[in-house]
Formats: sequence, C-alpha cells, structure tokens
Amino acid sequence: MTTAFDLLRTLARERAVVASAASVIGWDQETYLPDDGHSWRADQLAWLSEKAHELGTSAAWGDALAATEAEGSAPALAAAMRREFDRATKLPGELVAREAVASSLGKQAWAAARKTSDFAAFAPHLEALLAIAREKAERWGYSAEPYDALVDAYERGATAAGIATLFDALQPRLRDLAAAAVERSNNRDAKLPAGPYPIAAQQAFNAEVAASLGFDFKAGRIDTTTHPFCTTLGPRDVRLTTRYDEGDFTSSLFGVMHEAGHGLYEQGLPDAEFGLPSGDAASLGIHESQSRLWENHVGRSRPFWEKWLPVAAKHFPQLAAITLDDFLAAIHRAEFSYVRVEADEATYDLHILLRFGLERRLVSGELSVKDVPAAWNESFRDLFGMTPPDDARGCLQDIHWSMGGLGYFPTYTLGNLNAAQLFAAATSRPEIATANSKADYAPLLGWLREHVHARGAVPTPAEIIEAATGSPPSPEAHLAHLKSRYL
Amino acid sequence: MTTAFDLLRTLARERAVVASAASVIGWDQETYLPDDGHSWRADQLAWLSEKAHELGTSAAWGDALAATEAEGSAPALAAAMRREFDRATKLPGELVAREAVASSLGKQAWAAARKTSDFAAFAPHLEALLAIAREKAERWGYSAEPYDALVDAYERGATAAGIATLFDALQPRLRDLAAAAVERSNNRDAKLPAGPYPIAAQQAFNAEVAASLGFDFKAGRIDTTTHPFCTTLGPRDVRLTTRYDEGDFTSSLFGVMHEAGHGLYEQGLPDAEFGLPSGDAASLGIHESQSRLWENHVGRSRPFWEKWLPVAAKHFPQLAAITLDDFLAAIHRAEFSYVRVEADEATYDLHILLRFGLERRLVSGELSVKDVPAAWNESFRDLFGMTPPDDARGCLQDIHWSMGGLGYFPTYTLGNLNAAQLFAAATSRPEIATANSKADYAPLLGWLREHVHARGAVPTPAEIIEAATGSPPSPEAHLAHLKSRYL
Repeated sequence: MTTAFDLLRTLARERAVVASAASVIGWDQETYLPDDGHSWRADQLAWLSEKAHELGTSAAWGDALAATEAEGSAPALAAAMRREFDRATKLPGELVAREAVASSLGKQAWAAARKTSDFAAFAPHLEALLAIAREKAERWGYSAEPYDALVDAYERGATAAGIATLFDALQPRLRDLAAAAVERSNNRDAKLPAGPYPIAAQQAFNAEVAASLGFDFKAGRIDTTTHPFCTTLGPRDVRLTTRYDEGDFTSSLFGVMHEAGHGLYEQGLPDAEFGLPSGDAASLGIHESQSRLWENHVGRSRPFWEKWLPVAAKHFPQLAAITLDDFLAAIHRAEFSYVRVEADEATYDLHILLRFGLERRLVSGELSVKDVPAAWNESFRDLFGMTPPDDARGCLQDIHWSMGGLGYFPTYTLGNLNAAQLFAAATSRPEIATANSKADYAPLLGWLREHVHARGAVPTPAEIIEAATGSPPSPEAHLAHLKSRYL
Repeated sequence: MTTAFDLLRTLARERAVVASAASVIGWDQETYLPDDGHSWRADQLAWLSEKAHELGTSAAWGDALAATEAEGSAPALAAAMRREFDRATKLPGELVAREAVASSLGKQAWAAARKTSDFAAFAPHLEALLAIAREKAERWGYSAEPYDALVDAYERGATAAGIATLFDALQPRLRDLAAAAVERSNNRDAKLPAGPYPIAAQQAFNAEVAASLGFDFKAGRIDTTTHPFCTTLGPRDVRLTTRYDEGDFTSSLFGVMHEAGHGLYEQGLPDAEFGLPSGDAASLGIHESQSRLWENHVGRSRPFWEKWLPVAAKHFPQLAAITLDDFLAAIHRAEFSYVRVEADEATYDLHILLRFGLERRLVSGELSVKDVPAAWNESFRDLFGMTPPDDARGCLQDIHWSMGGLGYFPTYTLGNLNAAQLFAAATSRPEIATANSKADYAPLLGWLREHVHARGAVPTPAEIIEAATGSPPSPEAHLAHLKSRYL
C-alpha cells in the first residue's frame, strides 16, 4: 500500500532532482562558463529555482504533508517538513520575485561600490534589502525581534538575544586573546620559503591530502574558481572548488581542507534521504563546524604536519629548507587585519562579532543605513585598535548584505565554536586521539559520520551538539583551543 | 500589441531554456561527472528532457502556433514550426517513454555484446528498437517507405530512394578511388616523428588553431572526453570536447578542428532566434558539412600546414625533423580498415554506404535481424575486399542502432558531399582562394556565415546548398577533391 508518506517522498525527490539540476547550472557558472554565456545561464538558473520552489510549495505537497501528519508516520521528519513548508508558503511569490530582483541589483551595485569605496552608491540597495528582510520576518513571525526570524532560516533555534549573550561574553576574552596572539607573532619571524609553488604540484598535493581525510573522489571532484565553495549536485556528487596562489601553497591547501570538510559532511549525509530534512545538513553553523574542524583543528595541527611536511617537500623542494617548528609558526601567525576573509583563526571571530552587532541593530531599526560606515569603523577601532582606511576594506568588504543575507554572519562563529567542541569530544576518546597523533583520521571521520553527518537536519543544531558532546553548545572548547595554539 | 507570434516566441524561449539546461547536465555527464554521480544525473536529464518535450507539445503551444498561422506573420518560420510540432505530437507519450527505455537498455546490451563480440545477445534489443522505429514511421507518415520518415527526422527532405540513387552511383567510383588511394599509400613510407606529444602542448596548439579559424572562446571552450562532441548550452556557449593521444598530436588536433567546425556553425546561428527553427542548425548533413570542411578541406590542406607546421614544431620540437611533403603524405595516408571511426577520408564513405544499405533493408523488413552479421560481412567483402575478424569490428562497432538511431548514418556522407560542394563554391571566389592560400580563413568563415550559418533551419538542406553553390546537391565536388588529394 502506498502511504501518504511515500507520496511525500516522491514529491520531495522530484523537487530535489530539479533543485540539484539548478546546482549543476550554478556550479558550471562559477567554474567553466565562458564570458558571453552568463545571461542565458542566469535564465536557466532562474527557471529551475522557480520550478523547485513551485514544487516545494504546491497544493499536492501540502496535501501529502497533511496526510502524512494525519497517518502519524515519521512524526519528527514530518514536523521538520512542516516547518520548511510553512516557511516557504508564508512568502507570496510576488515577494520572492521582488527579493530576487533586489538581491541581483544589490550584488551588482555592491561590486561597483566596493571598487570605488563608495558606500553612498550602495546605501539605497541596502535600504531596499533591509525592508524586504523585515517584511519576510513579519510574514514568518518571531517571538522577540525580527532578526530572530532571519537567523532562524540559517540556524534553526538561534535567536538574537541568545547569540548576543554568547557573543557579549566572548568579546573581551577573544579580544585579549587575539591581542596577545598578535603580540607573540610579532616577536617571532616565521615565513614560508619563497615560491613558486607550481599549480600542478599544488593540485596533486591537495588531492592527496583530501583523499587521505576520506573525501571520496568517486563521488566528488575539485575544480578552480575565484571564490572557493562546496556544492552538491546529487546524492553522490559533491564538488569542491579552490583557487591557487603560486607564492603560497597553503592558501589553496587550507582552502581545499575547508571545502573538503563541507564535502565530507555532504558525502556523509544519508543518500537515500537526499532532498528530505533527514538527508540534509542541519544548519550553516553545523556545516561550518565541519569545514573549520578539518581546516584548523586537523589541518593546522602538529601531528598533521609531522606526516605531511615531508610529503609536501617532495612536491615543493624548497620546503626541505624549513623546520617543522618554523613551518608551524608560519601557519599559526596571528595579525590584526581589515578583511575578514584574510583573517587568521585568532582574530577571525572578532570580525563576526562586529557584523552581528551591526546587522542586528540594522534590522531592528536602531541603526540607520547611512550611519553604517561610522558605526563599522567605531566598532572596528574598539575591537582591533585600528581604523579601516576606506569602506572597501570596511563595511563594503562582504557580499552577504548585498544579497539580503542578513542573519548569516553569526553562523561563522557558531561554526568555530561547534568545531572546537566536537573536536574536543572526539579526541577525548583515546582511540581517536591516538589515531590523530599519527595523522590517521579514519576514526575521527567515523565519529563525525555517526554523531553529526548521519543525523541530517531533523534534530536542531543544539540537539546535535549536545548529543554528540554530552554538553550544550559552549564557547569554552574554542577558547581553550585558541589559547593552547596561540599563547 | 502582443501578437500570437510574440507569444509563440516566448513559449519557444522557455522550452529552449529548459532544453539547454538539459544540455548542461549532459555536457557535465560526459566531462566532469564523478563515477558515482551517474544515476542521479540520469534522473535530472530525464526530468528536463520530459519537461522540454511537454512544453513543446503543449496545448498552449499548439494554440499559439495556430494563431500565428492565422495572423500570417512569419509564414516560412511558422511552417517549419508546424512541421516540428506535428512530428512531436504525433508520437504518444507512452511511445516516447517506451523508446527511451528500449534505447537505454539497447545501449547497455550493445556495450556488453560488443565486448564479447556476441551479436546474438544484442539481437533482441535491435528487434525491439526496429519495431519502435517502424511504429514511429507509421505515426509520422511517409510517401514511399517507412525509412523515409526516419531519415527525414535527421535530414529534412531526404528519402530512401533519393539516397539510394545517389549512393548507388557513388559506390563504384568511390570503391575504385579508395583502392587506388590505398595502393598509392602502400608504396610510400610516411610516418610522423615518434611521440611523446605532451598533452599540455597539444591543448595550447589546438586552442591556437581553433581561435585562428574563428572559434570564439568568449562564447565557448574545449574540454576532455572519451568520445569527442560539440554541444550548445546557450546562444553564446558552445562546448567542444576532444581526447588526447600522446603518441600522435594530429588525433586531438583534427578532432578539435572537426568539433570546431560544428562549433563555428553553432556560434554563427542567429543568437536572437535561439530555440526557434530560424536559430537552429538545418540538419545533420549540413552540420557535418561544417565539421568536415574545417577538418578535411582546411585542416588537411597544404596551405594550412605551410603556416602551421612551423608553429607546431615550436610546441613539439621533434617535428623539426619532418619535411612538409612527408608530413602531408603522413596525414593523407589511406588504408582499408574495419572500423568506421578510424577510417581516413578516402575510405570513409564506403563504411556509410554499407550501413545505409543494411538499415534500409532492416526497416523495410527485407533483411531480418538475425542475418545482419552475414549481410554485413558480405557487403564488407564486396566494398573492402576483406572480412571483419569478428562482429565487434563488424556489425557491432557503432552505437547508433543501439539507441534506435536508424536513418542517421547517411547524413555522414551527405555531410562530406556538402562540405566539398560548399568549399568548391567558396574557393571559386578569388578573394577566398587567395586568403586560404595564406591560411587566412576569415573570408571563408564570412562566406559560410552568410550562406549557411545565418540561414538557420527554415530552408531545407537542399535549398541551402543550392542557394549557396548555385547547383543542387551533387557528389562531383567530393569525388574531385578525393581524386586531387589522394591520386
């Protein structure tokens, strides 16, 4: 007998087929698309995205979901799907279309404004995007403030007040820690041997490392882009991208380890549940925990380089000239910088705290758009002790707001905290700690598969962390990690 | 005022968006898809193909077409669209689905049967595909015999009787010419210097050549596949593929020149008409004329190598050791071989004549499936004077029948004939002949753009050839070309 739940799964599968076809188009757009192909490609992407949205908000879907709830099969999954369906259907098509246009114009205006460091040219777009974000929040509903509805779209269960409490407590501790780490780095001269590090050798080395972490190249690959990302084109097809700097092989390597962290998560989700919350990543904060864990906790650790520095030296002969200690000092260098994406582990979260503070006040209306540059610079001085030389290296540096992505930023720091907490819990097991000390990461991956990947998106992020580590989410492991590495 | 024709164009544009998204998926499948991704990718492709078919056969489309005919705008284009629409709607969905399954199973069975040279294992699939082809022919309708309806899908206006008359007249002349060319080659020892020809150098050289022919890399690119092809992913996005043999750089080069010929045609179709017959290639026989023209008439000519052999020698230093005459002798070598895709220009068409004769008799029922291997070998002996050692190198060598592609083969030889006739007409103009003699192909491309590319698929293939060359399609230019090159 076909149950309502079977029908719902069939509908979800069709939507996943269409949505993942859009991902193929999007991937090609970033990797191989010739210059003149962009406008047609955008039409293909728009058609597929609209069709996927239409399928996921259809009356047939609503009926099948209601019937699934009534028959009582898979209640937790049905509840997750109800939440998703209500979220999607609460926004009228007209608003979704308006947002797509505003976000597309916003991105263009932002890219131009950043080039000339002209915030005033971007401001009207940010106003429009803010108004749309507030309208979405009103339609979705929230308990305390509109920002709650926005952040919940990226990190289920997170609230502005909860994040603020966490970040406020973190701020002085992170600031002191970062200042001390920077001072310590300044007293030590540590540099990688000069390039060139040929791209072909970087590609070979990166692939060797990614495979050793468990990234499955039968179900994925690595290509080249300007902005690295990870995208999933099907249940067994995960694409990583990176970019190359011939002067520094660690740039593409840590990029690949970061994206491979995302990719290992995607490859670890249950294939048969693809397109359902039970086969989907839990949240951005959980996704980022996987990328940060592999990039920072594994990739910048001593045991990793005890094994891999000699291998790297085979690909890049100039590395024979550097000791392991000097190499580690070079990759653990901390310094205050203006740009988030160039920041090191020790200073990164300060960039996020700043953004969260501003965007929360923007959404509530407490901060007006025209005052963003001044507020940014003031907050930057407070946290970093220096003033951005221009808005291009200040409030115009990130793409997120220009796409209407308000509520996205805090998930980066939540990811860092989750990464440290998960890594500490995993390595409290002697068999994992022992394997890690030999740069054998199969036990670590096995633990993550079981405690994070296999769980999908039915439990909340906080439930996943608590079940995996035995404690609710907390910043202590992250602070302890930074202290031990940087001080 | 919006006319019915405007509406029809809008509908056609949407179908083109969807169909070209399927092409992106198909391209990725052949180039970059990781092994485990195939089954999901097939589902994406099936969904998109079905959706494109649905859009192109919808009641809305039919109504808009009828209204366009009634309002009398663009009558020639409307007639071409009527023909396409009737063809598509005459086949019930059930038959289309049945054909897709039979063709998918057929391909699998063929691949396995070819490996073990086991025709009996493939025979039931060919029976099923033949029955479906006959059923399609009955539904489409034909004047003389069912084969007419099938070949017309690839080559508008072609008929079995017309092709047979042409091929019957060609056969003795081609056979004698091929035999003489083979004998002449056997008396001359001409070989390329030994490899390796590094792949990176081949890629650089091929790209340089393709760009010099006029292939626009802002609107296209070249990637690597097992089976070279050209596909169009949007009005300004044409993808070529090739494969590399480190022992022979001419293999990928002529492959790229062949595919670039297809690509130049696609890039030359009117962008604004993409998805309409006025923006579509006229037929397979016209498409193949473009690939053969650039591969053979240009790429294997003396003036081309006068310019490019010294350039090639910069990429591949071993070429400094060969004279232009010896090089030309090597690339003009003729020999009888069992496999069509390895055949040279002088013997190629004999392979096609054989296939046309067999498939025409298969469709009419004159030849039964079980007798195919014997009939193949008999015909092969008659044309080539030798017997295939097994069916893998005989009647099982090609994929076409296993996909139900009956009526496809003759378009290869029609393409050769058209190529020669077009090239002769173009080079009868002194300014084109002079430019060609200096390996400057801009005037030639300009002529093809005007007389072939810009015309789309509204005129028939025969009309295009006659208007471009001043004479109806004829084999004389091809025979004259082969004679002058090989004898």
